Amino acid sequence: MSIVPREVLLALEQVRAYLNDVGRDIEPQSLRSAVRHYIETPGKLLRPLLLLTFSYSIDRRALIDPKILQAATIVELLHIVSLLQDDVMDMHDERRGVKTPRALYGDGMPIVASDWLIAESIKRAVRLGPEIVDYLAEVAQRLSVGQALDLDGDQKRAAEFKTAPLIEASLVLPTLLLGRRDIIDATKRLGRSLGVLYQYSDDFSDEKIKRDDVDTIVAEIRGALSKLRNALGEAFAPFEKLVKHIIEKALEGSLTVSRSFIT
Amino acid sequence: MSIVPREVLLALEQVRAYLNDVGRDIEPQSLRSAVRHYIETPGKLLRPLLLLTFSYSIDRRALIDPKILQAATIVELLHIVSLLQDDVMDMHDERRGVKTPRALYGDGMPIVASDWLIAESIKRAVRLGPEIVDYLAEVAQRLSVGQALDLDGDQKRAAEFKTAPLIEASLVLPTLLLGRRDIIDATKRLGRSLGVLYQYSDDFSDEKIKRDDVDTIVAEIRGALSKLRNALGEAFAPFEKLVKHIIEKALEGSLTVSRSFIT
Repeated sequence: MSIVPREVLLALEQVRAYLNDVGRDIEPQSLRSAVRHYIETPGKLLRPLLLLTFSYSIDRRALIDPKILQAATIVELLHIVSLLQDDVMDMHDERRGVKTPRALYGDGMPIVASDWLIAESIKRAVRLGPEIVDYLAEVAQRLSVGQALDLDGDQKRAAEFKTAPLIEASLVLPTLLLGRRDIIDATKRLGRSLGVLYQYSDDFSDEKIKRDDVDTIVAEIRGALSKLRNALGEAFAPFEKLVKHIIEKALEGSLTVSRSFIT
Repeated sequence: MSIVPREVLLALEQVRAYLNDVGRDIEPQSLRSAVRHYIETPGKLLRPLLLLTFSYSIDRRALIDPKILQAATIVELLHIVSLLQDDVMDMHDERRGVKTPRALYGDGMPIVASDWLIAESIKRAVRLGPEIVDYLAEVAQRLSVGQALDLDGDQKRAAEFKTAPLIEASLVLPTLLLGRRDIIDATKRLGRSLGVLYQYSDDFSDEKIKRDDVDTIVAEIRGALSKLRNALGEAFAPFEKLVKHIIEKALEGSLTVSRSFIT
């Protein structure tokens, strides 16, 4: 049995189809290959999954809204941007079991491909309204700060900025699109703390992160969850179930390594 | 005497002041230095100059419109993005007489700084309207294609995509902002051909570009200019004067090397 409702899985399939169309017609072929590399070697689509499950938990009819599916596509495209750039910055030659675009085409092409994908994300975001574009630009600037802190060697402070902003965005975008400004503060807190947990679980092995830090973050997640349950009632259960599963996986240290965690 | 009207020079000073405020408060300092490097080591501000002179030639009151000044700031920020990325891709260690951010901080920081600046440009563009954001995203995708063609070694085809889109944008943005849809086609042709001339004059030394190619482009520029003079009348003279100066400089091979060409 799946951790998330069948409706979410169906919507995720649609997002997969949307993603699969991105950059199909790009010329030259070199740019097309780099842009499409992580689309054709997909990960576990964590950000779209969070976005769709959260949307469904706010409003059962949300998943038929094309704007929600588009938002889920955008957060994955921006995640791919971060992978392409990470590969260059950290000189990764392998990811997801295959050679990285950087290893295949050199450092230039992934940088150009990330520019193309940023522009593609903006084009799609424009159709969701100016507030969404503005919010995503602000998210992107926080991600840059995170990358800079990381390059400076300040991993502890980087955690809050590196993964968290885009995971926060996966929850904030549907909240904005579904007109639920009343829950935006709790949503941001939940997204931020989930993102930090995810970043921590990625850093577990380096032992830079102490058990205390993790406990603090998990407590923060639970606090934000209960705020949202108060606001949304029983409808919120699907997202709670997903988050509990994520926390379990994180605590056992298998969150970021697993290829899929919804079945 | 200056090649452009005094009003344009005053507006250019304002754009310089706007640019000078960009990224002042960024933390960490490493990111701030990389973001501000080409602001503190300014070039000749060709794109803002084109944008402001074109705006003034469409409408004498255009330069008091804050949107026009903002658009001029944006095209320079996007130009800085392309410099930061070029430095990494072409491994430039010196530019404008000083060490590049790449040489100073490694390859990572200029990539992160370019992300920050793209996001900053988007934030500013949102305030100019969705059509402007959409157009700039499309410009960015053409720039990516140009970079990819360049990396592929196809310099001839790259010329149309590498420099031209952002120079085209310097003319198209005011045309859109000032509501002159009637001249958009001629504006695009003029911007594109000016951009290609600029790229050619940069490539003159490699002798990949033949004199015939240059003559063709100059004829194209003159054709678009006369279309615009028909539409705008005597008011268009300041921009014509600037373009004639640019063509002269290009033909004598000193366009891209000179630090300033307006006085």
